[in-house]
Amino acid sequence: MESTTSAPRRWDTRRQEKQRRLAAVRHLADGPVLRAERLPEALESLVVSGDRVVLEGNNQKQADFLARALTQVDPERVSQLHMIMPSVSLPEHLDLFERGIASKLDFAFAGPQSLRISQLLQEGTLKVGALHTYIELYARLYVDLAPNVVLVAGYQADRAGNLYTGPSTEDTPALVEAAAFRDGIVIAQVNEIVDDPKDLPRVDIPGSWIDFVVQSDKPFYIEPLFTRDPRLIKPVHILMAMMAIRGVYERHQVQSLNHGIGFNTAAIELLLPTYGEQLGLKGKICRNWTLNPHPTLIPAIESGWVDSVHCFGAELGMEAYTAARPDVFFTGRDGSMRSNRAFCQLAGQYAVDLFIGSTLQMDGLGNSSTVTHGRLTGFGGAPNMGHDPHGRRHPTPAWLDLIQTDDPLARGKKLVVQMVETFQDGSAPTIVESLDAVEVGKASAMPLAPVMIYGDDVTHVLTEEGIAYLYKARSLEERKAMLAAVAGVTPIGLRHDPKQTARMRQEGLIALPEDMGVQRAQATRSLLAAKSISELVDWSGGLYEPPAKFRSW
Amino acid sequence: MESTTSAPRRWDTRRQEKQRRLAAVRHLADGPVLRAERLPEALESLVVSGDRVVLEGNNQKQADFLARALTQVDPERVSQLHMIMPSVSLPEHLDLFERGIASKLDFAFAGPQSLRISQLLQEGTLKVGALHTYIELYARLYVDLAPNVVLVAGYQADRAGNLYTGPSTEDTPALVEAAAFRDGIVIAQVNEIVDDPKDLPRVDIPGSWIDFVVQSDKPFYIEPLFTRDPRLIKPVHILMAMMAIRGVYERHQVQSLNHGIGFNTAAIELLLPTYGEQLGLKGKICRNWTLNPHPTLIPAIESGWVDSVHCFGAELGMEAYTAARPDVFFTGRDGSMRSNRAFCQLAGQYAVDLFIGSTLQMDGLGNSSTVTHGRLTGFGGAPNMGHDPHGRRHPTPAWLDLIQTDDPLARGKKLVVQMVETFQDGSAPTIVESLDAVEVGKASAMPLAPVMIYGDDVTHVLTEEGIAYLYKARSLEERKAMLAAVAGVTPIGLRHDPKQTARMRQEGLIALPEDMGVQRAQATRSLLAAKSISELVDWSGGLYEPPAKFRSW
Repeated sequence: MESTTSAPRRWDTRRQEKQRRLAAVRHLADGPVLRAERLPEALESLVVSGDRVVLEGNNQKQADFLARALTQVDPERVSQLHMIMPSVSLPEHLDLFERGIASKLDFAFAGPQSLRISQLLQEGTLKVGALHTYIELYARLYVDLAPNVVLVAGYQADRAGNLYTGPSTEDTPALVEAAAFRDGIVIAQVNEIVDDPKDLPRVDIPGSWIDFVVQSDKPFYIEPLFTRDPRLIKPVHILMAMMAIRGVYERHQVQSLNHGIGFNTAAIELLLPTYGEQLGLKGKICRNWTLNPHPTLIPAIESGWVDSVHCFGAELGMEAYTAARPDVFFTGRDGSMRSNRAFCQLAGQYAVDLFIGSTLQMDGLGNSSTVTHGRLTGFGGAPNMGHDPHGRRHPTPAWLDLIQTDDPLARGKKLVVQMVETFQDGSAPTIVESLDAVEVGKASAMPLAPVMIYGDDVTHVLTEEGIAYLYKARSLEERKAMLAAVAGVTPIGLRHDPKQTARMRQEGLIALPEDMGVQRAQATRSLLAAKSISELVDWSGGLYEPPAKFRSW
Repeated sequence: MESTTSAPRRWDTRRQEKQRRLAAVRHLADGPVLRAERLPEALESLVVSGDRVVLEGNNQKQADFLARALTQVDPERVSQLHMIMPSVSLPEHLDLFERGIASKLDFAFAGPQSLRISQLLQEGTLKVGALHTYIELYARLYVDLAPNVVLVAGYQADRAGNLYTGPSTEDTPALVEAAAFRDGIVIAQVNEIVDDPKDLPRVDIPGSWIDFVVQSDKPFYIEPLFTRDPRLIKPVHILMAMMAIRGVYERHQVQSLNHGIGFNTAAIELLLPTYGEQLGLKGKICRNWTLNPHPTLIPAIESGWVDSVHCFGAELGMEAYTAARPDVFFTGRDGSMRSNRAFCQLAGQYAVDLFIGSTLQMDGLGNSSTVTHGRLTGFGGAPNMGHDPHGRRHPTPAWLDLIQTDDPLARGKKLVVQMVETFQDGSAPTIVESLDAVEVGKASAMPLAPVMIYGDDVTHVLTEEGIAYLYKARSLEERKAMLAAVAGVTPIGLRHDPKQTARMRQEGLIALPEDMGVQRAQATRSLLAAKSISELVDWSGGLYEPPAKFRSW
């Protein structure tokens, strides 16, 4: 043996540093319960300049009280933080950078803050590590982005730190574990602290993983991101939904699936109990879902279409409904739902037949992005759901149905369907020559263009014109021609050769509504199982309690 | 609104059924503590014919007491079980089928039982649902394989069911959550039940997720699957390890990685503190690992090469060592390690630069499988780690280094390296015309051949002859030629054209040892940082406690 020549090394530097910080705030806490009014002061001791800090910041719920407190620390004491946020959603998330407390950001999604991120990036106030999917951001917490501090939100905690998240479990377990088991510090804000552990409805995260809980001044902010008002579903959405049901779901026997957010997919959900029923498809398609609890799925559930729904997150107003449907939703011993974004993204990647979603821009090869000039939105979960997972080995009928050869070494494919109207509202084409993302990538000095879903992963493009079965393309040229044939009067669409269209229809490379037995005249709002939020409430037997902004009736 | 016409439906059938079963065994339990001597009787009430039953059965630890008890139920009362097992490892796992208790099997890996699975399959005693990777099997528990009963193993529990898994957390959280939150029944065997909750070192799974705990007659079985005795490392392994370090790790700046199981990769681990150090690579490569706690990594850790190791499972004998190195390993508040196979597979898929592993057979295109005639071994985690994850968006230097074009829509690639000697012991070629898996797939009426890693996901093939940089291939023909050039005197290798070899070396498509500055004469065992298990114990300062079978000195 060649003995090591290095000096004796300490192997518990993280643990010692954690103990030092915990000791420094002991006077500001009663055991694991931090005093809310002293929170900014406590954070000045618990967070150290240069730390990697995870702030939840996930798709729906927000650790907003902790975010506000962190903006109040003195940048002379705490600065250069490297923030890791699944979702950058609140103004406070970016105030951290403007106030000189944080300097670097790794994230997965930024909705309303996407414009300001772009601006701060250009000003040099903020440096972006990378854009991620949710699941790869969690993954890095266990590899090269080990956090020093993790700030999360829950419903309730007891005085030992046991945490009850209720339906909004979401990202919390994946974020907490990365710190709890690597000598990081975990702080949870909760709406309520209970004295008796027996008053916790259930434990979602054990107290031995949590260092501090703090009672917030008001319940954590949660946004109903996945509620679509059926009033806004237009006949074109219904036509496209009919095509999806006949030309994709029925044709490939899609049993398990994920829907993106949008009126197109909401229309599919609302057509299952009507159009789907007419076609005799109940029990044959769309049985197992990985999906947020979309209110527009209520009629399909009530009509017996849905065996199971595993949820990424919770949806405001759906708490009582999901709790009353435990055969369908995942619920705990207390009766309320448990969501889990890490496991649901995993299930949506590896265990479902189909992902269908929309995009803001798609090029002639099917590459798409929601990143447009001046906005750095990130990707959320789309690239994870919207690709063919080469690590999958189990077959399903839909997956096998996409094989185009008799090579015994062939494998199936996940169905990745892009469902887009050829034009956005306001007459900007959706299908474009070149993605804005290419320019944005260059302008922001990114190593690669921020593409959401790559064309080579897309198996179907569905527009109001028809469906291009891209997985059948035998060459890149054919792929382009197929996509152009359903691209309407966009610049890409105008380029297509009408003579080719007839041949491609005959060969089954593309299909127009009439080719799949879809009657355009039937595509009216009368086909929707529910035409308003109010009708969704009726379907739910009053269990769905829509947020105020949707109570327009 | 069109009102639903179906009869009033019950939405809590799973919950009611669970309550019925729990009530039926109340007399066999003291709260959540089942009486061990009445366990088979209890299982006859808790498990119902036709149930989906998850039995842990994971890579290292085994819920063996529960497995034995399940084989003792009366097949007249309980039969037609659909078993879901990450790993089929123990004879009892298959006894269930021979005794008529179970009939269908979904699994990910079968080591020593692979031969018997093949036989039972041929006899019709057992029907295989599908072969999976670990992570897709977990994923299906949340979609179309919701379990009725989950049987797991832990170190300790208290009388409220709070579970302490110690370092062997492994698959348990992913398995338990699927039942605990869908009205399934969770039973955990533990080595010890403590009366005072405070005596639990930490809580890995909250008691409100667990229905029953039962004290096993002896500690759960755990196998040291990942220990490789350095005595068995041969000079050819060392030569190949030198090539991996220079021709792959150094060349592409590999920072984060996963190693397969095998003497080749063990040799790499043992060469870092010697050969790697000579090359000045410390701190530049191999810093973040997703890996079981391989004893052969000890010298690299002690020499300061390793920033972090996140573990799939625990390794027998490494408990004290991992607990003493919390800066490197993930440990809990109690000080012992926490492994997590679901998160580690996630990290290994999405957050590392490189996977390197071996296989039993590879064809001329780089397709590989460990399934050979008469053995249905399954895949374990290899296909998940060993593919290019198209859902990844964040760049690293290694990932970007594999881009071969200036197309702004190009993306990087994960390095997937197959490291094989051209011949197995006993002179059977590793590189073959056609994989046995193709025949096995047909004989077993599988829809597809059971391929472990597909050639189109392999970026490098490394043999004792040299490295083929397959990601550079511009055509399928070139790919074949490159692989043939490093295939030695196998039938595939004999087919290569020596004139092409020179050109391919010049173009950097392949590299021989001398092309990467590797001196064959240096490839001797004296280069190993440790040459025996005993020397690994020395490196660890006596913290590593090898199992008896490795104590041969």
